[in-house]
Amino acid sequence: MSMTFRVVARASRGFARAGEIVTPHGIIRTPVFMPVGTQGSVKGMSPEELREIGAEIILANTYHLYLRPGVEVVRDAGGLHSFMDWHRGILTDSGGFQVASLADLRSVTNDGVEFRSHIDGSRHFLSPEKAVAIQEALGADIAMALDECVRYPADRGYVRDAMRRTTEWAKRCKAAHRREDQALFGIVQGGVFPDLREESAKALADMDFPGYGIGGLSVGEPKEFMLEALEHACAHLPEDKPRYLMGVGTPEDFIEGVSRGVDMFDCVLPTRVARHGTAFTAAGRIIVRDAAYARDFSPLDPACDCRVCRNYTRAYIRHLLKAGEMLGLRLVSYHNLYFLIRLMRGIRASIVAGAFKGTVQEIGDLCGSK
Amino acid sequence: MSMTFRVVARASRGFARAGEIVTPHGIIRTPVFMPVGTQGSVKGMSPEELREIGAEIILANTYHLYLRPGVEVVRDAGGLHSFMDWHRGILTDSGGFQVASLADLRSVTNDGVEFRSHIDGSRHFLSPEKAVAIQEALGADIAMALDECVRYPADRGYVRDAMRRTTEWAKRCKAAHRREDQALFGIVQGGVFPDLREESAKALADMDFPGYGIGGLSVGEPKEFMLEALEHACAHLPEDKPRYLMGVGTPEDFIEGVSRGVDMFDCVLPTRVARHGTAFTAAGRIIVRDAAYARDFSPLDPACDCRVCRNYTRAYIRHLLKAGEMLGLRLVSYHNLYFLIRLMRGIRASIVAGAFKGTVQEIGDLCGSK
Repeated sequence: MSMTFRVVARASRGFARAGEIVTPHGIIRTPVFMPVGTQGSVKGMSPEELREIGAEIILANTYHLYLRPGVEVVRDAGGLHSFMDWHRGILTDSGGFQVASLADLRSVTNDGVEFRSHIDGSRHFLSPEKAVAIQEALGADIAMALDECVRYPADRGYVRDAMRRTTEWAKRCKAAHRREDQALFGIVQGGVFPDLREESAKALADMDFPGYGIGGLSVGEPKEFMLEALEHACAHLPEDKPRYLMGVGTPEDFIEGVSRGVDMFDCVLPTRVARHGTAFTAAGRIIVRDAAYARDFSPLDPACDCRVCRNYTRAYIRHLLKAGEMLGLRLVSYHNLYFLIRLMRGIRASIVAGAFKGTVQEIGDLCGSK
Repeated sequence: MSMTFRVVARASRGFARAGEIVTPHGIIRTPVFMPVGTQGSVKGMSPEELREIGAEIILANTYHLYLRPGVEVVRDAGGLHSFMDWHRGILTDSGGFQVASLADLRSVTNDGVEFRSHIDGSRHFLSPEKAVAIQEALGADIAMALDECVRYPADRGYVRDAMRRTTEWAKRCKAAHRREDQALFGIVQGGVFPDLREESAKALADMDFPGYGIGGLSVGEPKEFMLEALEHACAHLPEDKPRYLMGVGTPEDFIEGVSRGVDMFDCVLPTRVARHGTAFTAAGRIIVRDAAYARDFSPLDPACDCRVCRNYTRAYIRHLLKAGEMLGLRLVSYHNLYFLIRLMRGIRASIVAGAFKGTVQEIGDLCGSK
């Protein structure tokens, strides 16, 4: 089967949408937050726990899995779903972003990118066709076309060239893509330049992808530039296809993205900040490692009904973090992911109920709703 | 309520016993393996997971909890059960062993031990009375009298003095102990010297403790010395009280200990070796990090029915360990603990069925039995 998408409700003057993506591994209710399982594991979480918190789709990174354990191992395991024992949705990125941010990038040409592994220095070449072949072997429900992501600030000429290269690569990816049980998304680039975002979105829309990533945002630019670029991208993407704002995922970003027409988000933030002892709460972030919580026997977030908040106190979690016990990180990661998934559920319910206003002031209320 | 113990079946010419310890936090079926939760957490495991694998009692270390988070925090949380959200049995050690092995030990006198914290160098004094007071505040079901554990090899004179000091401390601990819902065990010392073990066991037996630890074994001495010392200790301990062989816990040790009359074991081995990628199996240990397992899509232990072995492959777990993903350590720890708990269940069932022979060759069969 191939992926389908339908919008079931709208809000925010029609920009915000509640929808359903149907994949071979189940229904994904949008807007959706996708936890990031970089190396085939969402840090600190088991697949059982991801199911328990209601994750319907997770992201995995092609660059990491390509280098370790290698595509052949995952393919021989029966694909990534089977390898990880995760039988709901998976989206893989193309590897382009990690090549630019982690690897020792050697050169970008119209043919593709040459890089050295950050693990062992070995030399590799990633072309659009190879990015597709790897992702077909990994077998995610949604694959991404190879793109070139440019950090802010960057010269307009370079951003334009990278965007046009990304468009050419999208064509080649689409031509190379074979798996009917996997949807291939194109990626809008164009930095903070509204006209480049428009050009990119229109060119990709003409290729009729089943969905679209919006990349190259939240890479250092001021928030207002990001929102403007996002608006210009969304304005020129088809209404009946899902839109995925790549690598963006604070509670505020959810509200601002959804109210501009975004359906999908991913971000490492909830597990990354957990490592530093930061927990999301309906009243804002707290750093539970702080001495202030040493004898605080209330839950991480009194408004939360997750397993961690039902069973453990801030004092215990602080102790675990201070003592270097793995369970501390597990518990904060679990709560933070639950918090964002529940927030997104709240946003969706609010859109369906016709109550979504799209203001960040709503976050506290949305976090408390089921 | 106070703890009770009864023997329900015997084997190995009457030495091996199957029994039941009834505590305020449930029934503990013996022989039993107690996972170690050093700092108020069994490394890599959540309390839910410990329940799931059938742990009936865990051990926590007084020395660590006394230093961090501090006794007052645990007491204010309502005791260790409540602090950890673990509502089955807990045994706390006295702190004596860790003071000797981890802290900067300043001096041991008849009054107690003076030491400096391994965390911040702060100076502390632990007397028998203080060891009891701390453990009463922690609130475990079973507390241990303060002892002096001597490493092998050691001068007979020193071992004798330390053993007699331990006996004196046991008297003082018993006199100081107040909590009726907590059982206080004395600890047999005497190194590898059979006559000192006999003297120690007899002196403690005369004090009529509700249970007895056997300490100072598996501290560097040859295995045959350990077993001989163990036999001499058990021979002079009362038949109707549980015996706890402290810090000992390989599958072979279980068989050899149980066949000599031991009822309780604890060991950090299953979680410690997990960190190096070592898994217990019915066919012996494997190092799943090894390249040989890169494409091995069988479970860690094909004879095991635990959640990890039902859902994950050696290849995936190897990948997680190589990639430094926390989940790898979690999965191996979970399996290893389950393996030892299940092995002990098998030993108990075998005693009850009158089939237990007490030979290490039985391990493979016992691991496969429910």
